[in-house]
Amino acid sequence: MTPKIVDCTLRDGGLVNNFFFNDDFTKHLYEANIKSGIDYMEFGYKASKKLFSKKEYGKWKFCDEEDLRTIVDINKKTMKISVMADVGRCDYREDIIPRKYSVIDMIRIASYANTISEAITMIEYCHQLGYETTINLMAVSTTDSNTLIHALSALKDCPVDVIYLVDSYGALYPCQIQNYINLYSKYCSGKKKLGIHAHNNQQLAFANTLEAYQLGTEFLDVTINSLGRGAGNCPSELLINAIKENNVLCIDPILQFIEEYILELKKQGLNWGYDIPYLITGIYNQHPSSAIQFINEEKHNYNAFNQNVKQHSFIL
Amino acid sequence: MTPKIVDCTLRDGGLVNNFFFNDDFTKHLYEANIKSGIDYMEFGYKASKKLFSKKEYGKWKFCDEEDLRTIVDINKKTMKISVMADVGRCDYREDIIPRKYSVIDMIRIASYANTISEAITMIEYCHQLGYETTINLMAVSTTDSNTLIHALSALKDCPVDVIYLVDSYGALYPCQIQNYINLYSKYCSGKKKLGIHAHNNQQLAFANTLEAYQLGTEFLDVTINSLGRGAGNCPSELLINAIKENNVLCIDPILQFIEEYILELKKQGLNWGYDIPYLITGIYNQHPSSAIQFINEEKHNYNAFNQNVKQHSFIL
Repeated sequence: MTPKIVDCTLRDGGLVNNFFFNDDFTKHLYEANIKSGIDYMEFGYKASKKLFSKKEYGKWKFCDEEDLRTIVDINKKTMKISVMADVGRCDYREDIIPRKYSVIDMIRIASYANTISEAITMIEYCHQLGYETTINLMAVSTTDSNTLIHALSALKDCPVDVIYLVDSYGALYPCQIQNYINLYSKYCSGKKKLGIHAHNNQQLAFANTLEAYQLGTEFLDVTINSLGRGAGNCPSELLINAIKENNVLCIDPILQFIEEYILELKKQGLNWGYDIPYLITGIYNQHPSSAIQFINEEKHNYNAFNQNVKQHSFIL
Repeated sequence: MTPKIVDCTLRDGGLVNNFFFNDDFTKHLYEANIKSGIDYMEFGYKASKKLFSKKEYGKWKFCDEEDLRTIVDINKKTMKISVMADVGRCDYREDIIPRKYSVIDMIRIASYANTISEAITMIEYCHQLGYETTINLMAVSTTDSNTLIHALSALKDCPVDVIYLVDSYGALYPCQIQNYINLYSKYCSGKKKLGIHAHNNQQLAFANTLEAYQLGTEFLDVTINSLGRGAGNCPSELLINAIKENNVLCIDPILQFIEEYILELKKQGLNWGYDIPYLITGIYNQHPSSAIQFINEEKHNYNAFNQNVKQHSFIL
């Protein structure tokens, strides 16, 4: 099994700065990923322009073809390009063109388990247009097992290429990753591949990604220096080193990019990465939005925040 | 199996500030640990006063009985007290008094595998004085297997209570922890217990501690908010939550302590916790001293540092 590393720095990182990355950042990220041996780079979302304004969000919220082409060398084929499309937030019949006219290779459909039928309609549509497709079942740590199994069963006969385990709240331990991967594997029938997208609320994004990889998961999501919503994601620089023996992967261009571009984002005041408030939403299995607000307001009364989040804890 | 959580905040944290913690910090740490259900608190080292000066190091480098008694309630027995003694850096025959006259319950002997015979002499001495003892075999990730097996064999018939796996350089992955724990278990013969002390260079201190715990390791080292040399240690607030079901453990007093005392250390400019230079020494299996210097000099040319460390990499 050859793992596929999917860089989500722009897409998950865009959730931190509303996708306002300048072209210099994006071009150098693109080049660093290619040099490091990354397999896919996800640029952002195909979000509905009826629901979201181009004034409030940067270009990678929408990933228009002409914007992608300012960055992507059309002759490249060493690294594939992906975008994400959210169920209910994408005008996919209008905004997604056939693959042969696009630099995009893969469309990743993000859905909760209870909107799986709409997700499958989108998958079938994108598949017919020639794209590789994934389903990213979000927030499984708060999805009851009947709903999850119903969603996985429905996916069995649809043309999706990859089924992703997504730990949106950074709530899962490695032993739980094992249980989920075993469950997901049952519905893959050897025909579909598995993927993992982890969050770092409990400093487990890397460990959980390694655990999934060792259990046969092929698609592994990373972001450079964890850049992503809340506690961020599995850091590229950690995963690349861990599995470098199976690949041509190399961390040097990633380190160079951190030094030249990521430190600047930190200086500008962008906030992400492991911190106590994210730990608290993680252990109580909640969306990080309350932690993001707490940190943005520069509060530090962790124990009071903990008591508040605990009251709304969601443990299956 | 009931896990024993050992708080090393003062001892490993003392390596960051030369043990200059004030009594207010130490007293509140002691109380927070008791309230959280911590089993042992390690105050620091029993270091030789011939080798180390009291001007250069704070009191917890030496852990004199009278200093311990200013903090420790002699009537307490819910939480035990430990200190560490380094082979070759401790005048143990002069400085360690019989347990019945001391508030100390456990002496942890830190040794490299190639000084095991001296370590065993110290263990036997402390055992005769009535103490619980551990052996903390440091830097196993750079110890060849013959030397390690020789050390483990020698420990088999000595009275040490706990054998610690110590990932001094934060170089090990969970699958390697599994291999080491399996090896160490062979030499415990069911008579000795296992312990783990992890470092966070690759964001794996928590995951590696969990892995060891699930394989039957009873003594689990933590520090509050990772406070410890370089990338720091397994964070108390993460481990306590993960195993709270088996215990009376509670994170609330730890969160309160972070808010009231740890943030202040950060403000003062103390540096510890995951950062790119520590990742680099971790993946190349080296002591973090070069990374600590790099960070203290406020350098950020990560890729150049990486090339330099790579040249001296030590991969077994």
